[in-house]
This record gives sequence, C-alpha cells and structure tokens, in this order.
Amino acid sequence: MNWPINVTIKEVGPRDGLQNEQSFLSTEDKINWINQLSRTGLQSIEITSFVNPKWIPALADSLEVAKGIERMPGVTYTALVPNRRGLEKALEGNVDEMAVFMSASETHNQKNINKSIADTFPILEEVVKETLSAGKSVRGYVSTVFGCPYEGQVSIDNVIRVSEHLFEMGIQELSLGDTIGVANPKQVQEMLNVLLKRFPIEKLALHFHDTHGTAAANILAALDMGITTYDASTGGLGGCPYAPGASGNVATEDVLYMLGNMGINTGVNLEKLLGAGRFIQEKIGRSLPSRNLQACLTNERGE
Amino acid sequence: MNWPINVTIKEVGPRDGLQNEQSFLSTEDKINWINQLSRTGLQSIEITSFVNPKWIPALADSLEVAKGIERMPGVTYTALVPNRRGLEKALEGNVDEMAVFMSASETHNQKNINKSIADTFPILEEVVKETLSAGKSVRGYVSTVFGCPYEGQVSIDNVIRVSEHLFEMGIQELSLGDTIGVANPKQVQEMLNVLLKRFPIEKLALHFHDTHGTAAANILAALDMGITTYDASTGGLGGCPYAPGASGNVATEDVLYMLGNMGINTGVNLEKLLGAGRFIQEKIGRSLPSRNLQACLTNERGE
Repeated sequence: MNWPINVTIKEVGPRDGLQNEQSFLSTEDKINWINQLSRTGLQSIEITSFVNPKWIPALADSLEVAKGIERMPGVTYTALVPNRRGLEKALEGNVDEMAVFMSASETHNQKNINKSIADTFPILEEVVKETLSAGKSVRGYVSTVFGCPYEGQVSIDNVIRVSEHLFEMGIQELSLGDTIGVANPKQVQEMLNVLLKRFPIEKLALHFHDTHGTAAANILAALDMGITTYDASTGGLGGCPYAPGASGNVATEDVLYMLGNMGINTGVNLEKLLGAGRFIQEKIGRSLPSRNLQACLTNERGE
Repeated sequence: MNWPINVTIKEVGPRDGLQNEQSFLSTEDKINWINQLSRTGLQSIEITSFVNPKWIPALADSLEVAKGIERMPGVTYTALVPNRRGLEKALEGNVDEMAVFMSASETHNQKNINKSIADTFPILEEVVKETLSAGKSVRGYVSTVFGCPYEGQVSIDNVIRVSEHLFEMGIQELSLGDTIGVANPKQVQEMLNVLLKRFPIEKLALHFHDTHGTAAANILAALDMGITTYDASTGGLGGCPYAPGASGNVATEDVLYMLGNMGINTGVNLEKLLGAGRFIQEKIGRSLPSRNLQACLTNERGE
C-alpha cells in the first residue's frame, strides 16, 4: 500500500465534541482543555462555534473561550460560523480560521440550519467573502455525505453540487462528514473516486464518526486513496445534536495510535493527547468512547 | 479493491468472551445465548473451553453446556481443548470441532499454558491426532502474533515456526490472534505477505481484538489480502485473562455491519445477532463495547 507519509489531524472536540453535551462545561475548563491540546503537537484545533446560543447552549461562551485561550505558535484555531453575525463575533475573538457548514441532504440541512440548501448558499457566500477579506482562512463542512438520518442514502450528485458551490465561494479545504457514522470503506473509496476527479486531493479532509464501528476502516480506505487530512475528537466525544442515534466522532487517540503504529507521521504526541482525554473525561463525568483512552485508564488502575 | 465476496464469521463469544468474566453466567443462560446465536445464520460457534476449571472457573460447566445446547444443522460447534483430558470431555460432549492453542511468544505461552513452547508441541500433537482419529475437525490458535504483553514485539520467525508445527500436526485451519489488540493494518499486511507464501489462504483466519480501536481497519487490511475467515465475539465481550490491560474481542455486530454494507456476504442476520447481543449484555449486567449494539440500544431508548 502507498499510504501517505504525513497526515494532519484536525482536533474538533472542543466544538463538535462539546456541542452535543447536555451539561455546561465551565469556560475555565474549556480553556484549560484547549490549552492542553495546544501542547500536544496538533496543528489545528476547532475551539468553539459562533452559532446562536439558543441552538447550542453548551457553547454560549464562545467569545470568552476564543479570547481566553493561549495561542501556541504553529497552531491554527478554528471556529464554526453560521452567518455574518457569527463571523463578526469570531473576528472579535481573533479566530484564525472560520468553518462554514451545510448538508448534502435537503432534509438534514433544513433541520440543522433551518433553511433549504439553495437558501444556505448566499449566506455562506457572504461569510466566506468577508472571512477572506479579513485575511483569515476558511474551511467548509459538508454533512451527511455518506448517509442522512432522514433521507437515508444521499446521492453523489448532491455531494458534488454542494462541494462545487463551496469551492467556488473560495473555501480552502472541504471536510466531508459522515455525520451519523454509516459510511463503509467501499463507499468511501467510491465517493473519493468521483470527488478526486473534480477536486484537488490536498483540499479534501474526511470527518468520520464511529457510531457503527467503521471509522478506523474508513480512514484506512481513505489513506489508500491518498487523503492526508482527518478530523477527530479527543475521547471520541461528540455527535450531531440533530441526528437521532448518532454518537461518537472518531477518537483522536485511536487515530493517532493507528497512524503512529503504521509509521505515518502526525506530529502529535499520543501520551499528551491521552492526558487531555483523561482531563475532559473527568470534567464530563462519564466514560468516553475512545478505545485507547479506556485501555490507558484500565492499565493505570492495574486491571 | 478486490475484496472477497463471501466471508465466514466464527463466533467465539461463549468461550473467548465469557472466559474472562469474573461473575459466573448460569449454564441455562449460556445455553439460551448459544441457541440464539445458532439461529442467526452463523456457521461456527465456539461454545466453551475444556480447560481445567481451576484456571477458568467461568467455564466450569463446559460439559453441561455442550450437552445442553440445541444443534442447528449447518452450524459447527467448537470447543477449546488444552490436552487429552480436555479432549475426552469434549468428545463426551459431542463437540464437532476442537480448537488447540499456543502462543508465538515464549513468555506468554509460559504464563498462559504453564509450559514452554517446545513442551507444548507434543501435548497438542496428541490432541490433534486423537481428534482426527475420532473423526472430528481441529482448528489451531496462535496467540500474540502481533505483539506480546510481556515481550513486546514478536518475530515473524516465531509465528512461522509455531504455525508450521501446528499445520504439520494436522490442524485444518489456523487462527492468528492479536491477543492484546496491538496490530495495525501495515503490520497485518506485512505478516500476511510472509505467511501467505507458506500457507494456503483458505486455511488462515484472523482473530482481532479492538483494545486500541484498530480491529475494523485490520480486518479491512486482511480483506485486501483476500482473507475470508474472521473470529469475532458478540458485544465485543472478552479479552485474554493473562494479558494485562487487554479488553475486547472485535464485536461480531461491528464486523457484520461493515461487511454487510460493503456488499460482502456472511450469511449472518445482523438484527438477530443484535438480539443475542442485547440478551448477553443484560445477563452480564454492564455495557459491552460493541458500537452497533450501543447505537441500537440508544435508538431504542429514543435518544
């Protein structure tokens, strides 16, 4: 196999992981956690979301978090922004990179953003334009690429259409999301076979959820195709609040373990990442899905 | 990718899953569970171990289980046998297939079997010979193929040496065990590249543990190489009692979900398997590691 030598892991836990939590993690704990993540060697951390707190109360302190964290040289701090208003707050928080988002499926887009796909485009277009004018970079997420909790299968044509629109707007990277964790390696390779004919490989990232235990295999399938950027969440924290039954972003620890043992360089220190995982598990107060975090804690207890 | 069209899943939960349990599952519950598994379409179920109950008290009722279960046509019922005495009991229980076992690493073999590798060979040779004389089939396990909890890395030469001895004795299938779940896809392919030059592909099975979240990717890596037989445990129950920190055979549900969605035929009904998983989780009384079992239960609770 011709796997890439270097892979970039984008940590999304502080945003995608926390947004689904019922209880409110204190601003101080969030900042502490992000500061720990900044010291692991990660090059990219998505720190919060500037979505209206009415929709995501768990991240109502986005501006305080953005202003409160230490900025480590070499780390890009990203935030989710849904619209111009969110962007203004994110710029006030001096976020390095904005992430815009929409779905490949009409129903999920409607339920998640409260707008049709067609009506979402002009809003994101404005955000992307203003972000670039402000000298910041911008990343796009497409959700439900591999399946929708409402519509089931999502056509590749829909994925292409939404992705093309986002690239035309000027996004610099596109993250393809398996929002409900239903992707399988065959589907990943079929999807990438089509998308790689249209978009440059270095601009595509993959965002897998481990809801059905396929995330590691899906990453391997994408590595086979040469993809070098993967989103992951410490502890496996997270899921989509509007996707029934969805749980568990792929755990950063588990991705690091696999890649590290395959000799693929990520620049991230697994031990330090496990420390950040232990911290957030204690604060959240329940066992998180990461296999490596649990194996590490089991070993420490001497079981 | 040229993945196989048909794959055989060998269910090892009632033996490898239960052997590590501290509490004793009643004989009635074991029989009930195995009878449920027999109706899922599985072709092979490892029902118990005829190891001395002093070592594995959780399976002290092996003979009652073997005698008590319904025998479904088309299902092979296997049991672990360590020596001639175990074989005699297994034959009394009318088990279809015997599984013999040893380690590729000297220290693990010593701790697990209380004998050196060299001293284990003649004992297994006798068991294999008697099994074949009795008209039964026999399967071999090699443990710690991808890493040892005591020695760390295990040399491929050791794996070859033990595997060759077992095939020379007359075993009909060899299951390569990642006892502590440390294998990665690169290592799996490197190991198979060597072994497939010596042994016929249809006689090799893989037995992965998901301790570090790599099992699904390892299965994909082995599918890439054409391997068609995989061991798995309902719910992800199990681990090796003598391997510190080890936990979790790969969950049968998770393997079935991935293979099914890749269009690979196993003949096993996932819904029925999930039913058997729900049953054993209730009896064991704690949340089992299978991602699909947890996703299914989450959906049912309407979360």
